[in-house]
Amino acid sequence: MPTNLLHSIQYPDDIRTLKVADLPQLAKELREFIIDIVATKEGHLGASLGVVELTIALHYVFNTPEDLLVWDVGHQAYGHKILTGRKDIFHTNRQLGGISGFPKRSESIYDTFGVGHSSTSISAALGMAIASQLNNKNKHHIAVIGDASIASGMAFEALNHAGDTNANLLVILNDNAIGIDPAVGALKDYLTRVKSKRLDVDQQNIIEALNFDYSGPIDGHNFEEIIRELERLKEINGPKFLHVVTTKGKGLRQAEEDQVKYHAPGKFDKISGDLYPSINTNLPPKFQDVFGHTIVELAEINTKIVGITPAMLTGSSLKFMLDKFPDRTFDVGIAEQHAVTLAGGMAAEGLIPYCNIYSTFLQRAYDQVIHDVALQNLPVIFCLDRAGLVGEDGATHHGVFDIAYLRCIPNIYIFAPRNEIELRNILYTVQLGINGPIAIRYPRGRGSIVNWKKPFKKIDIGTSELLQKGNDIAILSIGSIALNVTKALSKFDSKDISHYDMRFVYPLDEDQLHKIFQNYNHIITIEDGCINGGFGSSILEFASREDYSVPIKVLGIPHTFIHHGTVQELHQQCKIDPDSIHELLTNLM
Amino acid sequence: MPTNLLHSIQYPDDIRTLKVADLPQLAKELREFIIDIVATKEGHLGASLGVVELTIALHYVFNTPEDLLVWDVGHQAYGHKILTGRKDIFHTNRQLGGISGFPKRSESIYDTFGVGHSSTSISAALGMAIASQLNNKNKHHIAVIGDASIASGMAFEALNHAGDTNANLLVILNDNAIGIDPAVGALKDYLTRVKSKRLDVDQQNIIEALNFDYSGPIDGHNFEEIIRELERLKEINGPKFLHVVTTKGKGLRQAEEDQVKYHAPGKFDKISGDLYPSINTNLPPKFQDVFGHTIVELAEINTKIVGITPAMLTGSSLKFMLDKFPDRTFDVGIAEQHAVTLAGGMAAEGLIPYCNIYSTFLQRAYDQVIHDVALQNLPVIFCLDRAGLVGEDGATHHGVFDIAYLRCIPNIYIFAPRNEIELRNILYTVQLGINGPIAIRYPRGRGSIVNWKKPFKKIDIGTSELLQKGNDIAILSIGSIALNVTKALSKFDSKDISHYDMRFVYPLDEDQLHKIFQNYNHIITIEDGCINGGFGSSILEFASREDYSVPIKVLGIPHTFIHHGTVQELHQQCKIDPDSIHELLTNLM
Repeated sequence: MPTNLLHSIQYPDDIRTLKVADLPQLAKELREFIIDIVATKEGHLGASLGVVELTIALHYVFNTPEDLLVWDVGHQAYGHKILTGRKDIFHTNRQLGGISGFPKRSESIYDTFGVGHSSTSISAALGMAIASQLNNKNKHHIAVIGDASIASGMAFEALNHAGDTNANLLVILNDNAIGIDPAVGALKDYLTRVKSKRLDVDQQNIIEALNFDYSGPIDGHNFEEIIRELERLKEINGPKFLHVVTTKGKGLRQAEEDQVKYHAPGKFDKISGDLYPSINTNLPPKFQDVFGHTIVELAEINTKIVGITPAMLTGSSLKFMLDKFPDRTFDVGIAEQHAVTLAGGMAAEGLIPYCNIYSTFLQRAYDQVIHDVALQNLPVIFCLDRAGLVGEDGATHHGVFDIAYLRCIPNIYIFAPRNEIELRNILYTVQLGINGPIAIRYPRGRGSIVNWKKPFKKIDIGTSELLQKGNDIAILSIGSIALNVTKALSKFDSKDISHYDMRFVYPLDEDQLHKIFQNYNHIITIEDGCINGGFGSSILEFASREDYSVPIKVLGIPHTFIHHGTVQELHQQCKIDPDSIHELLTNLM
Repeated sequence: MPTNLLHSIQYPDDIRTLKVADLPQLAKELREFIIDIVATKEGHLGASLGVVELTIALHYVFNTPEDLLVWDVGHQAYGHKILTGRKDIFHTNRQLGGISGFPKRSESIYDTFGVGHSSTSISAALGMAIASQLNNKNKHHIAVIGDASIASGMAFEALNHAGDTNANLLVILNDNAIGIDPAVGALKDYLTRVKSKRLDVDQQNIIEALNFDYSGPIDGHNFEEIIRELERLKEINGPKFLHVVTTKGKGLRQAEEDQVKYHAPGKFDKISGDLYPSINTNLPPKFQDVFGHTIVELAEINTKIVGITPAMLTGSSLKFMLDKFPDRTFDVGIAEQHAVTLAGGMAAEGLIPYCNIYSTFLQRAYDQVIHDVALQNLPVIFCLDRAGLVGEDGATHHGVFDIAYLRCIPNIYIFAPRNEIELRNILYTVQLGINGPIAIRYPRGRGSIVNWKKPFKKIDIGTSELLQKGNDIAILSIGSIALNVTKALSKFDSKDISHYDMRFVYPLDEDQLHKIFQNYNHIITIEDGCINGGFGSSILEFASREDYSVPIKVLGIPHTFIHHGTVQELHQQCKIDPDSIHELLTNLM
């Protein structure tokens, strides 16, 4: 048997020269290649290991890129990237200027549709299939979607439409019974029943009820079975559905055993598979953990508190609450829309729901925030995790639009803690009773305060905080970007510059703003959100409304999509890093 | 038999004093009452007529308002309103200061959750049911949802979660096989099959597969059948599902026969049921019809054009295209998320999708606009119908956030035609080839130009138009609110005031803006969208960036939810009507 097949593979055409019997060896090498690089460069591991055979088989059977393959979410597409011309640059994965951690149209013709958020693949592939019909092109269109992603409403909408067409669409369910955390919901239970009775699924199942030609479940690590079935489905017209069962993390013992931890494990030993322990144990905590531990503390004293997450139990650290209060903690699956309206229903009946959703994913429930919560002024507490630039996950995942898209909605308060203690205190404050909804946006990763677990202190709604007093220039910051301002200011000897942490985007601290506009010659606003319509823009509106003419400089994310890199690198790109702030101030003084 | 039962009914308690045998008479009177008032006051008709028996039966069997009843969408809730304390004010329905056309928490304790957009009821009722569990309250929680609404992804998310709980939730499917237009999709076909085989549904159906206790289909106009089944379901624990078959428009011949037209028929003869013909046939056309006729014209010359609507075929006038090009016209059902990403997939393969979505409903697909279209810079054409204040439908339906929520997204052009010809020309322009997405926002209802069908003229991207030249004050308007400005200006003899139709929110006509900022002493912006983060805000950002200090006054929708009334009344409320503009200008001069 050949020992280094991967070496000779640059594009899928090369795979197609192999015999089926060679493919297991290629799979073995591809797994090793992925493990090798992810062990040192970090990234998503488990999902890609689980679909190694499926990835090879798809490119073997179908004529990519002529046939169109859409990976849902895309963190399982490392094998796809490596086999489609990007093997030699795969080590640049998720780095500034390197390849993206997700399929991206601008990166390769094999990446037919950009992904990152879940459950889009069936809609996109159906759109392509309809286009091929209208263009009289004979192509195959394949969406590969996980069992957690297919339970999201958007995927159902696409299945419901596709089943009503005769489009040449193949939906492949990659069923590993887990998303990032274990999959939940009635559909998951159903799929489990289907799998356990795999020999006697005679009744029409859900998928067949939606007019799909259903086949499976088959073993997703058995090349012969997969290839036979894909070849058969190629010949069938109309919407088809193949149920493939895989093991997330396949081929790395620890990744199979602890699928949650090895979803994106950080650096690990590529031989043993063991994770490297954290060297510095005296780091400030992650904002996530501050949220997770604090909500447990609060839930102990306030029995009305419930926690909701759409499939981000571990990422949000709401798992701490699940461990302690399983009856009051709800992982609703990848269902942001439902999560928000569920919270609305709970609030209507007197509960205090903390609905934790990543900033970028709240985009999925925008209408529900407006229509089901804000319009009814229901006191739902939105905890917007991973607000601002998130770093290596890149353009699909940055939480940079939230201030702009939320502050146009009446009734909703918007708060951004500059550090862990502020987060802790606002989480405490809101459960004391607020008369409407609030969004609390905080960044991914570690804060700046090691000893964060101080006694709770109530925050007055709509108040700002003066962090440094000067007299010529006033900097108004919102959220954790305050730290970059503090760093920039520490480079000056003089104290000509004031620094206000505005804390609330809404309601603005107008009393303080009047004083600021009456006392300074220059005003600078800074945020780790988009400039268009953001926090700075709200200061411009205030000035216009109140007839102030002090010049205002607005810093933030420019009007372009920011790609991947470290948060520091991206701050530099947007000129909101300490050095850029320092330079701007120097020029102004 | 009693001849005037309704007279004695103010609240559901009064219904519960009746015998089951009396209920058909009450139903008859309730139908007449609804027809009587909607015939002259206008409103949604067909949906409420279809659920008269169901409405009475629900309040008869359940202990409302203690038991919690959520109506999906809510345009079928007229009977509910009449029977829950609002009979005597029902004639104020949808009028300024009157009751809302939809259930609204602030209006009545019987309106447990505000609705208007579809498919929220199961999530909300589940949230309430979980709250009751945690609060140790023994209540029933009922969501009534139509067959078009249940096919939306959000409803699936809620079913998927509910089926995994033991919440005391009853979902009632009001299956009349129609939304506003006839229902579509594979699920609809499936429900039709279930109904046609109603005596031998032995196989587990979709709903049962999701762990619901399924019963039905039953006749939704037969009190004995409904009440027997509701009484039975009251005793069953956990999530339950009752499939009820009704006829939309039941009891009014024309409304049963033409369910689309009688969804919201306008004024009609309450005896004959006939619609009143339009008196003035020489009115300017609706923007909707300009869209519908123009896309047909364009589709004839450009074969790449396709049309997409999420369940608004008639409302958007895309039905004109469906009639002419059925293969290129897609009603995907109430599935905004899918509609947008489907359009993205089509655009990726070279089609030119016109995705027509009401401004308020695009909120449902916000993430898809960002993630699946704008980020990939795919040339999808969003036609945002019913942008701005929509009038009588009220707070749930105003399209006032779109400029703010779209203009923070990179890559997407935003255009607002001030009249029908501008709409027609931009629809023409975009199919000539644009390099990214565009949103075209236009209002509900009639424009101002009778002879609108002029030869096509290309619009240069990012250009504005000077409508009146003055020298002291410059008014910058966007979209059809320009007409109010023109009316205001017509009251002045002098021509001190310039009026620019900016046309594009993005890209702004910066060349023109530089000239404006260099030449005027006052600048006023006006839009029929929210002030926070809107078009005016983008002008403030421009001024800040370019260091202009000319005072700018921003007019638009204030930071509060606007309720129902005529568009004119609401413009007055927001001070963007001709008189208010005139007054502001007078004070400034």
